[in-house]
Order: sequence, then C-alpha cells, then structure tokens
Amino acid sequence: MAGEMQKWVLMATAQTPTNIAVIKYWGKRNEDLILAINDSISVTLDPAHLCTTTTVAVSPTFDQDRMWLNGKEISLLGGRYQNCLREIRSRATDLEDEKQGIKITKREWEKLHVHIASHNNFPTAAGLASSAAGFACLVFSLAKLMNVKEDQGALSAIARQGSGSACRSLYGGFVKWVMGKEENGSDSIAVQLADEKHWDDLVIVIAVVSSRQKETSSTSGMRDTVETSMLIQHRAKEVVPKRIVQMEDAIKKHDFAAFADLTCADSNQFHAVCLDTYPPIFYMNDTSHKIISCVEKWNRSAGTPQVAYTFDAGPNAVLIARNRKTAAELLQRLLFHFPPNSDTDLNSYVIGDKSILQDAGVQDMKDVEALPPPPEIKDKVPSQKCKGDVSYFICTRPGRGPVLLSDESQALLNPATGLPK
Amino acid sequence: MAGEMQKWVLMATAQTPTNIAVIKYWGKRNEDLILAINDSISVTLDPAHLCTTTTVAVSPTFDQDRMWLNGKEISLLGGRYQNCLREIRSRATDLEDEKQGIKITKREWEKLHVHIASHNNFPTAAGLASSAAGFACLVFSLAKLMNVKEDQGALSAIARQGSGSACRSLYGGFVKWVMGKEENGSDSIAVQLADEKHWDDLVIVIAVVSSRQKETSSTSGMRDTVETSMLIQHRAKEVVPKRIVQMEDAIKKHDFAAFADLTCADSNQFHAVCLDTYPPIFYMNDTSHKIISCVEKWNRSAGTPQVAYTFDAGPNAVLIARNRKTAAELLQRLLFHFPPNSDTDLNSYVIGDKSILQDAGVQDMKDVEALPPPPEIKDKVPSQKCKGDVSYFICTRPGRGPVLLSDESQALLNPATGLPK
Repeated sequence: MAGEMQKWVLMATAQTPTNIAVIKYWGKRNEDLILAINDSISVTLDPAHLCTTTTVAVSPTFDQDRMWLNGKEISLLGGRYQNCLREIRSRATDLEDEKQGIKITKREWEKLHVHIASHNNFPTAAGLASSAAGFACLVFSLAKLMNVKEDQGALSAIARQGSGSACRSLYGGFVKWVMGKEENGSDSIAVQLADEKHWDDLVIVIAVVSSRQKETSSTSGMRDTVETSMLIQHRAKEVVPKRIVQMEDAIKKHDFAAFADLTCADSNQFHAVCLDTYPPIFYMNDTSHKIISCVEKWNRSAGTPQVAYTFDAGPNAVLIARNRKTAAELLQRLLFHFPPNSDTDLNSYVIGDKSILQDAGVQDMKDVEALPPPPEIKDKVPSQKCKGDVSYFICTRPGRGPVLLSDESQALLNPATGLPK
Repeated sequence: MAGEMQKWVLMATAQTPTNIAVIKYWGKRNEDLILAINDSISVTLDPAHLCTTTTVAVSPTFDQDRMWLNGKEISLLGGRYQNCLREIRSRATDLEDEKQGIKITKREWEKLHVHIASHNNFPTAAGLASSAAGFACLVFSLAKLMNVKEDQGALSAIARQGSGSACRSLYGGFVKWVMGKEENGSDSIAVQLADEKHWDDLVIVIAVVSSRQKETSSTSGMRDTVETSMLIQHRAKEVVPKRIVQMEDAIKKHDFAAFADLTCADSNQFHAVCLDTYPPIFYMNDTSHKIISCVEKWNRSAGTPQVAYTFDAGPNAVLIARNRKTAAELLQRLLFHFPPNSDTDLNSYVIGDKSILQDAGVQDMKDVEALPPPPEIKDKVPSQKCKGDVSYFICTRPGRGPVLLSDESQALLNPATGLPK
C-alpha cells in the first residue's frame, strides 16, 4: 500500500455450507469464548441447496467496517462479530496482489476497514442454522482475503466465537467439534471425521414446519438450560461422551442402524433438557411430533431404521434417509401425510434436489392426491391429512466444506465501489 | 353363614377421590408388585367434583366374581384386579351383621364371590387418573365389607398393586407415596403429609384438553422410559429425593412460591424423561404448551408464582392457584385464550365449583367475549384465540380421603339381587 490514498478495492468471495448436528451441542461453559459443555458431531449439508455466500473487501477508501446481510445493512458492533474480526486481523499476513499492484503488510491490515456482504440461498428466518453458515463464511472469506496462513482447525476456533455450531461448517462431510480443555479455547476446534464422499448414500429431507410461535433463541435457551436443568450436566458428562464414541464408530462403518438410533435419541434428549429447563423451552410442536411418529412407525415396521430424524432449536425436521430409494419412499410418506395447501405449487413445495421427487413418482398434485397410505398404517389411516402444517420440503445430501469462488460475477460487492451490487 | 344356601346380599358403598401428583411417579422397580423408583407426592382432589363411587357385595348366591364399570361389565381376570382381591380376602376377619342376621367367618370369606359396581363422576376417557380413584375405591370398599382391620397405610399398599398412584388416593389432603425398600413391597405405602384443611386456600382448575392423538398408556410408557431413557435414573436417584424434602417443607409452611416452582419443574422433568424415552413419548401437545406459556408469563410479570401447572400422562393441564382471587383471575385468562366453541354452553364449559366463575365475573358468553387481554400480554395480544382447543374446565380444590356411604340409595348394586341398579 503506497503512502497516498488509492482507490483500489481488494475482494474475496466464499461459499460455506450449513450443518445439522446429529449429536447436539447445547450448553456453554464459557459464554464469551463460546466453549461447549460437550463434544458434538454434525453432517455438513450440500451448499447447492443450503449455503451462505459472503464477499469481503478492503480498501483504503473505506472509513469503517460495514456489513450487509441479504441486502440489508446490519451492525457489526456485537461482541461476536468483533471477536471474529479481531482474531482474523491479528493473523493477517503480508499480501501482494500482482495483478492489481497492491501490497499490504501485516501491520497495515490492522488499519484497513472491511466491507462484508452475505447472502443465504434459503430463508434466513426458517430456523435452518443460518448463523452457522454465516459466521463460518465470514471467517473463511476474511482469512482468504487477509492471507491468513492458519489451518481450518484454527479458523474453526475463530468461527466458533461467532456462533458455536459455525466451527463445524469449516469442513464438509462428517465433523466433530471437540469441546477442548483449555481455558482460552485454543483446543475447542472442529475436526473432520470423514469427507462427504465417505458415505454418499445418505439423502436428507428437511421439512420446514409452519409455526406461529416465536422461538427462544438458542443463545438464551442454552444459558437457561445450563442454569436451571437438573439433567443437563448428567447428559453432558455421562451420556454424550459415550454417544460420541458410538457415533464416530457408526459413521466410520456406515452403520446406518446405529447412526439413526443415536441421531434420534440425541435429538430427543436435547429437546428433553429443553423441557427440563425452567421455564420450559418447547422447540418441537404437534407437527414435529407427527413427523416423528410417522418415521418411528415406519422404522418399527421395517425392522431396521430407514430414516433418522433430528430437530434443532425449532420445529423443522431434518430427516436422513439411508439411501435414495428410502428417500423417495420417505417423500411419498411425507407428501401423503402433509400435502401442500391447494394454492401451493408442487414445484415450490419440494425444493432442492428434485430428482428425489422424480424417484418418488410424483410429478404433480394429482400424483400427490393419488398416493396410497404407507403399508405400516394401512389399518389406521388418519381421518385427516395435515394440509398446510409443513411450509415446504428441501431435498439435499451431505456436502462439501467452504470454497473460494474465483468467478468475480458471483461477488456480492461491486469491485469498483466495495458496496453491495 | 348358615350351611344352607341363603338369599342375603351384604353390601358396602364407598366414595374415593382422585389425586394429582406434584412430585411425579414415573418408573417401577418391580412391575408385578408395582414398586416405584422414587417417592412421589400428590394433592387429593375434592371428591365432590372428581371421584369414584364403588359398591361391593357378597352373597352365597353369587357364583363368580363380577365387576361393572360405569354400567358395563368388565373382566376381573387381569393380574391387578386379582392381586387386590386376593390381598383383601386374605385379610378378611369374622363379621357379624346383626341387622340382617348374617355371620361370616374369616375362612368363609375365601369362598364367597363378590360383585363390584364402580362409577366415575367424570369422563373415564378424559385422562383424569380414573384408575387411581378406581383401585383405591375397590380396595377401600372391599376392606370395609370384609371387616379388614388393617390401617389405611396397609390398604394403600394393596391399592398400589392395582395402580401405583391409587395408593395416594387412600388419604385426603397432601399425600406421600414412600417407595420403600423391602423386596415384597410391604413398606411401599402412602402416608398423609397434611389433611385437606391444612392449606385450604388452594383452588384447582383442570383444563381438559382436546386431543386426537391416542396416548401411550402410563404402564407401557414408564416401562419404556426405565428401559431406554439415559436420564431417568439420574432423576429418580439424584433429583427427586431432594425435591421430596423441599416439597414437604413447602407444604408444611404453606410456601406457595416453593410449592409452585417444584410442581412445575417436576412436571416438566417428567415430560422430559418421556421425551428422552425411545421411541419418544409426547403427552403434552401445542395446547398444553400454550397453557404453560400463559401461566409462565403471568407468574413472571407478577414477580411471584400465582399458579402452578402440572400435567400427567396426557395433555390436560392441572392448574393450582394460590387462592380464590388468583383462581378467578386464572379463569379469566383461560377463558380469554381458550373460549368455548360457539355451540358450547358456558354452563357445561366450566364445571365443578362454579362459584369461581362467579368470582371471575363471568355469567354468560357475552362476558367471555368481553374479557380484556391480561395485562402481561397487552402489548402482544395473540391474533387468534384458541377456540375449541379445550373441551372444558373443572374447578375444584384439595379434598378429603375415602368415605363409606351409609345411605343405601347411593349404592350402585341392587340390595336384593346384587346386580347393577
């Protein structure tokens, strides 16, 4: 960077996946550093269907740090953003961009302001862990921009300070967040257990459940649980450590039965400790319960698990099918029980990987109406279908970790002004 | 009893209350004897509003044991009925009824068959612990008929073998079921902590919640919990013992704040271990959750608990108000959020002690419609009221234990034939 004011803007754009925990993170031992009271394990979701794209830029012309989320400017004053920005800046290294003729030294990074534009390819308010993908993408893209040389593990520890579960979005496939022991959180990082190709049979269907209730934020919810639940410490100290070992083993061996049993039981236990919180926290609603019943009946009649379910801090169901065939059968069951409202287009009711819908033999609303009751309930078909209880379904699969997008057309900031396009 | 066949019928009629646990019983350590894995504490409900009436009869003309429940003959072959009948018969003593000129010796009781007619003054299917009142009444009335000399504690241990919670219905007021230590269950009995006059400020409002879901029976539910929940043993061994001590103290001191906090937290924890069961058990539904929210908001805004809530193995809410004034305010809130369907008569929508309705200033549907939103939600009045989500409300209070009804007109069996009237 020369002494005189220059007009250049240096940018980096990255895409980062969201993830769904199969062994849940719930409860912090340190609120500021975001250190968990137990390990957790997640599956990274295919960014083709659920991801955050973030462009970060620096320029000597920027006079403050600014951020836009889904086109709207938001404040960066919160401690979580400040922690991430500070940690990344402190690790910036000398950079030379020959094409643009820009040189930035380690010391100069401290004085340069950043512009950040972030966009989710899914509804932010739908309770689909947008903060995990968002903070992971912020940290990853800033690290690339600022020539940070640390490995993904170190970056995950920074993303963790933005949102705990964000650390797991630094990798694709199957990821463990190791809670760590250090006071300063340096060993509380994500590690990849296996990449997304390791177990590519799995298909994931997310039911976005309609809800009128305002949900408790996970930050305040887990704080209340740690303060008031008489069961959470037993869960964190006695139950989860064993499940982590078993889950790692199930993933390693592609043991779907063990994977499903552990996933479902741990989701249920997470919601159990929420209920044991005072005042109690309810994230699942009657629709969530019906989806669980539907899956449980099927799994029982099949003799071995076909589908696992897991629910985060909201009523949405994340359903993991053992393979494509099972996923198509799952979608048939879901559409039988939860058909779209009559004014809803099937094309917008099942989104993501639509080939699953084809496998299910469902092309239009007539096919939905013609779906037979699943064999496991044929003697007691419900008198009423639950129209409108699900907003839409997203079909996806385990996916890759963060990537840098080199195509400048995908950037969210204007390369000339550094402002949102 | 003379040698020759005689035509006499000897009868006894009793009335026994139901009860609501405030520290919950969930989980058996012995399925046959019905021995619990933790102590529990309940409040006996006023039999004027919720009770079972049972008439038992013996006659040399009866050729088998028979029972009618709410007018319909049911089988007595189940182990639980057989256990209660056997235990009571073995404790029968010599009886002389001078009025009718009947003498029955201890040995003769063994050969005499019984007729039993039982009736609940509330809907059996509504999930209002009818089995507790039912078995308590069966055991109590048979004990009176057969001149059993044992005390209420010993009778409670017999009723326990019919239905665990039945043992607590042998006393009025506030009752503890001591889990006991003996293998044979002889020390697993109910004891009265305080009678119903000890704390007669309390008013109880039961919301009978509409539900289309078939519920898991508590017998199979608690078996599944003991077999699969990773939290239930911690609850039984570490959490409940402390709560029992605190609850006894709260009752002794009329400490409503402590009573309410313990009652709500223990109800929530019971439902938490149900959720931690595999497959998970859901007893509460969205309406139950809404009732909890309504109470929690009020309690928080009041600064100290006004109402406690507790839910058994179903969606019905049992709400315990600190006094009559609070109960009237509670009923106003409940009717505001959960007005009756337009075709429902207010008189059949709020039953039991209707003076609470008068205190609430509600005389007809116009008064219900005119109810203002409670102050604690005045800034965010829900857009939609939950019409039809509650079937009806029962207003009641803590009540007395079992009583013998000497008025023969209240008997459910015909004194001449020993058959249902």
